[in-house]
Amino acid sequence: MTLNKRLILVTNDDGITAPGIRSLIKVMRQLGMVVVAAPDKPQSGMGHAITVNLPLRYHLIAQEEDYTEYSINGTPVDCVKLAEKYLLPRRPDLIVSGINHGSNASINILYSGTMAAVLEGVMLDIPSIGFSLCDYVWEADFTPAEPWVEQITRKVLQEGLPRYTGLNINIPVPGSGGIKGIKVVRQGEGRWEEEFEHRVDPRRRDYFWITGHFKNYDGMPDTDLYALDHGYISVVPVHYDFTAHQAIPHIKNILEDAQEK
Amino acid sequence: MTLNKRLILVTNDDGITAPGIRSLIKVMRQLGMVVVAAPDKPQSGMGHAITVNLPLRYHLIAQEEDYTEYSINGTPVDCVKLAEKYLLPRRPDLIVSGINHGSNASINILYSGTMAAVLEGVMLDIPSIGFSLCDYVWEADFTPAEPWVEQITRKVLQEGLPRYTGLNINIPVPGSGGIKGIKVVRQGEGRWEEEFEHRVDPRRRDYFWITGHFKNYDGMPDTDLYALDHGYISVVPVHYDFTAHQAIPHIKNILEDAQEK
Repeated sequence: MTLNKRLILVTNDDGITAPGIRSLIKVMRQLGMVVVAAPDKPQSGMGHAITVNLPLRYHLIAQEEDYTEYSINGTPVDCVKLAEKYLLPRRPDLIVSGINHGSNASINILYSGTMAAVLEGVMLDIPSIGFSLCDYVWEADFTPAEPWVEQITRKVLQEGLPRYTGLNINIPVPGSGGIKGIKVVRQGEGRWEEEFEHRVDPRRRDYFWITGHFKNYDGMPDTDLYALDHGYISVVPVHYDFTAHQAIPHIKNILEDAQEK
Repeated sequence: MTLNKRLILVTNDDGITAPGIRSLIKVMRQLGMVVVAAPDKPQSGMGHAITVNLPLRYHLIAQEEDYTEYSINGTPVDCVKLAEKYLLPRRPDLIVSGINHGSNASINILYSGTMAAVLEGVMLDIPSIGFSLCDYVWEADFTPAEPWVEQITRKVLQEGLPRYTGLNINIPVPGSGGIKGIKVVRQGEGRWEEEFEHRVDPRRRDYFWITGHFKNYDGMPDTDLYALDHGYISVVPVHYDFTAHQAIPHIKNILEDAQEK
């Protein structure tokens, strides 16, 4: 099978108009048949949300040779579900999500619609990759990232991924020496040190904006945070098992034994 | 410190009017000072969403001795963040979320606002428990669950939980013999076999409802799905590390070695 027959589903969480998804589409069109199914408006911070109280609609935006583009009035996870079950001509060979405007390293994966789309693909046992650029600006320059996105995607199309495993890939803003390379690492420990900015509206009612800054609590070199800080692309293999396996014996002691008494 | 001085934050994702949270509040008021901070409307399926594009507002709903209740126009994660940073008099001793109307076992944890609130608490290093009843009906009977919720919560208040570890607790609808006991288990493998129900609106435009049924792909007895099927309460210790640690060496071979060539 030649590479250009591969079927690639592209989505994101910044919405179909975001520059980041245009960059990703450009790269993917060099690698196969591309179907885009992306939210019709920004869905940042939507996590693994799905739309259960509203009906979903899709709109065909573009149709060219080996290229189809749909917008959907839902979340990134809705987009993957609707595309996989309804819009795609067959099961895709790859799902890519992004390129996100802003880091999804460390705990940001929990809030990320970009990575939720990836985890949805992983649950469907489809190789899935999320790409994020560590630059929140809408006008961010995605061009230095593109050759890396292409190289990584090409490798994954060739080699596959372990079953039920996706990739969370974060790309640093290149320093003067450019991007240094790729590090395969674990999710680092970090936190948002949150603040709520308190304001009063013209009707004298209080309201709050979530704000805050991210803090790295994990200095270890085997983490995504360390790789990014040192100019490397971070690649974290991800799955969707939340079980804290090592805690099971202790919790058994507390809760299963309790009921014996 | 006596139990009744403990400060307990209560939230959910079905919204402040749901019968499930009333049941949880009733139990928690026997165990300590309670602050409720819950969404003002249903937030099922919201996953780990946060509200970044709208301002947050809270309303004081009730204030009694050792009891305060707020509704918030946000997601369950917003509720935990705003309560912890702004509404609570001090860091809480415990966060409880639920009782959810419907199972959050297996992969349902990904979509669950109830469990997202728990994971947010876990990230804040506060002992956090999510309770769900395996009955989606609004009028479900929560009373058989209540003594178990009380017993488990009391044990956790006494013994604590390992750091950065929460509990995903699902409670079966009791059979004729009642609830059989508690099993501490791992997250089972399951899938939503999704369908999209296609309809046409009065303006002749297509729309879709997400629907489907859950399928257990994991017959092993050490899973939440098995415990629930056999009449036991399932307790899964959870954390927020998405890293597929065992896949790191293989992905290193594919991607880090690639760049050396």
